[in-house]
Amino acid sequence: MSISIERAWAALSEMDNVLVLTHAVPDGDAIGSLFALYLALKKMGKRVFVHTDRVPALMGYAVVPEAYSDGEPDYVVTVDVGDKKLLQKEDRERYGDRVDLNIDHHGTNVMFAKETYVDPSASAASEALFDIFTYGGLELDAAIAACLYTGVSTDTGCFRYANVTPKTLRVTACLLETGIDAAGLNTLLFETKTRPYVRFERAAMNALKVSADGKIALMVITQDMYRDAGIDEADTQGINALPRTIEGVLAGLTLKEKENGVFHASVRTKPPLIASDICAVFGGGGHRYAAGCEFGTDLEEAKTKLLREVRKAIDAIPEQ
Amino acid sequence: MSISIERAWAALSEMDNVLVLTHAVPDGDAIGSLFALYLALKKMGKRVFVHTDRVPALMGYAVVPEAYSDGEPDYVVTVDVGDKKLLQKEDRERYGDRVDLNIDHHGTNVMFAKETYVDPSASAASEALFDIFTYGGLELDAAIAACLYTGVSTDTGCFRYANVTPKTLRVTACLLETGIDAAGLNTLLFETKTRPYVRFERAAMNALKVSADGKIALMVITQDMYRDAGIDEADTQGINALPRTIEGVLAGLTLKEKENGVFHASVRTKPPLIASDICAVFGGGGHRYAAGCEFGTDLEEAKTKLLREVRKAIDAIPEQ
Repeated sequence: MSISIERAWAALSEMDNVLVLTHAVPDGDAIGSLFALYLALKKMGKRVFVHTDRVPALMGYAVVPEAYSDGEPDYVVTVDVGDKKLLQKEDRERYGDRVDLNIDHHGTNVMFAKETYVDPSASAASEALFDIFTYGGLELDAAIAACLYTGVSTDTGCFRYANVTPKTLRVTACLLETGIDAAGLNTLLFETKTRPYVRFERAAMNALKVSADGKIALMVITQDMYRDAGIDEADTQGINALPRTIEGVLAGLTLKEKENGVFHASVRTKPPLIASDICAVFGGGGHRYAAGCEFGTDLEEAKTKLLREVRKAIDAIPEQ
Repeated sequence: MSISIERAWAALSEMDNVLVLTHAVPDGDAIGSLFALYLALKKMGKRVFVHTDRVPALMGYAVVPEAYSDGEPDYVVTVDVGDKKLLQKEDRERYGDRVDLNIDHHGTNVMFAKETYVDPSASAASEALFDIFTYGGLELDAAIAACLYTGVSTDTGCFRYANVTPKTLRVTACLLETGIDAAGLNTLLFETKTRPYVRFERAAMNALKVSADGKIALMVITQDMYRDAGIDEADTQGINALPRTIEGVLAGLTLKEKENGVFHASVRTKPPLIASDICAVFGGGGHRYAAGCEFGTDLEEAKTKLLREVRKAIDAIPEQ
């Protein structure tokens, strides 16, 4: 059931002994929203704990280690989760069917929780959380603001993408006013490359292939490439942005081999090409210009199917 | 003479037949401020024209070609110029001593104009211009807003740097409300690499040397490297950000050979290292964590002197 911001705040206020979860292979918005809500519920005097499979290397500052616990919660809240199948396996099996409240910003949210607050106009789940906290009159401190800033800045590509609205910027202004070191966070989140990442990026660039008169750039990432670079898969999500950076490219595609051998596609497009339309053909979804979908374990089949749909979408663009 | 915002607006209102200039090898803030002021003065019913040595390749959208003219101005205004020696040679010789109004945001501004409006708290000259326009009640249209957005976004590294204030974000929110395609501009300004740039960047990365236990990264860029990559020097300014991106680097240095053979240093630092202090030793200046200075034509001497100062500054950092 979809709920209002009023009800979202009331639901949070009523809960106690709360477990907060986010999606598997968490990105900055997942981690930022997770710990922002953890800190906010603490501040509201609740018993609260979190599960997450990992925290990406450069987001370590956000970790609140005592948050981890094996206790049995009375309430389960998820943040930034469009579908329960995106939860990590253990969380999905234990809690997937008993999520009390889901706070999200994906227009494609399937409403799997008992109550769902989803604002598709919010740039990030963290922006939706800011709205709820502000609605409830919760005083933001710098610790909560740093988590929310992490969510908003990473989900907008540090304020580059089309999901940035005037409101996103005004929310971010309020976060800065708590005294957070936004530039320091940006240096960690966007300007720092670990040495394994530099090695991995070089291999990824060598794997990049341009086709369709330069309109499509495809990069295949295998488990071997993570191993050779000595890097954890979850620390390589920034690589998805690379194929679209080339002049003239309309569709930047990344096919990533998962640990179980299946291939995940990341599709980043430039207008007028719609990434979420392409991914919807394969049962996936996401944002207008940045979406994802799943294929099987056959790389050649995944490539062929994905490239065919992308070419079809490019051919359908009206001549100018 | 330093003037108030009230006087800056009055000065613009009083002028007619105005030439607007900016610094040599213009960056996004120079180009954005130049054309924003051009369009604003036009809108105020003035005769106005601009000089600039060039417009960087990916900023072509901002060009207002009919703005160029050889007429003799009654008034000369400069934007984003901290010192008249930063004007291009021809402009400096013809107009350097008769600038009526200078609008700037560099704390190091030497006040060379008859009247100077400088706001060091503004992230960009474009932010200072926004304030003046807003003070005067000038209605911003999308064309002016796109120019101001270009200035603010490029001078803040797309909202990454420490010069972003809550006010910067609220100003940007107002710019977005004029209906500009900010994401499209960002794609052009930050996400698009021309093929010559990709070639140049690869050569630059090969020229990168790390020293001082990984705390200093130095890159030397020669005129030959521009020639080999087939790129115009003015289209390579983004490269200055590269040395500082490496994990652990406190000082990212770029020594660039100019056409006349002298070497220009770009110094980018991370706190607590202050770039403008290091550059001040060599008569240069700029911002706290991004500054510049000039050396002679002897590369080895330039390297030795610059590295000595940087090491001294690093050694002076108190142990934590």
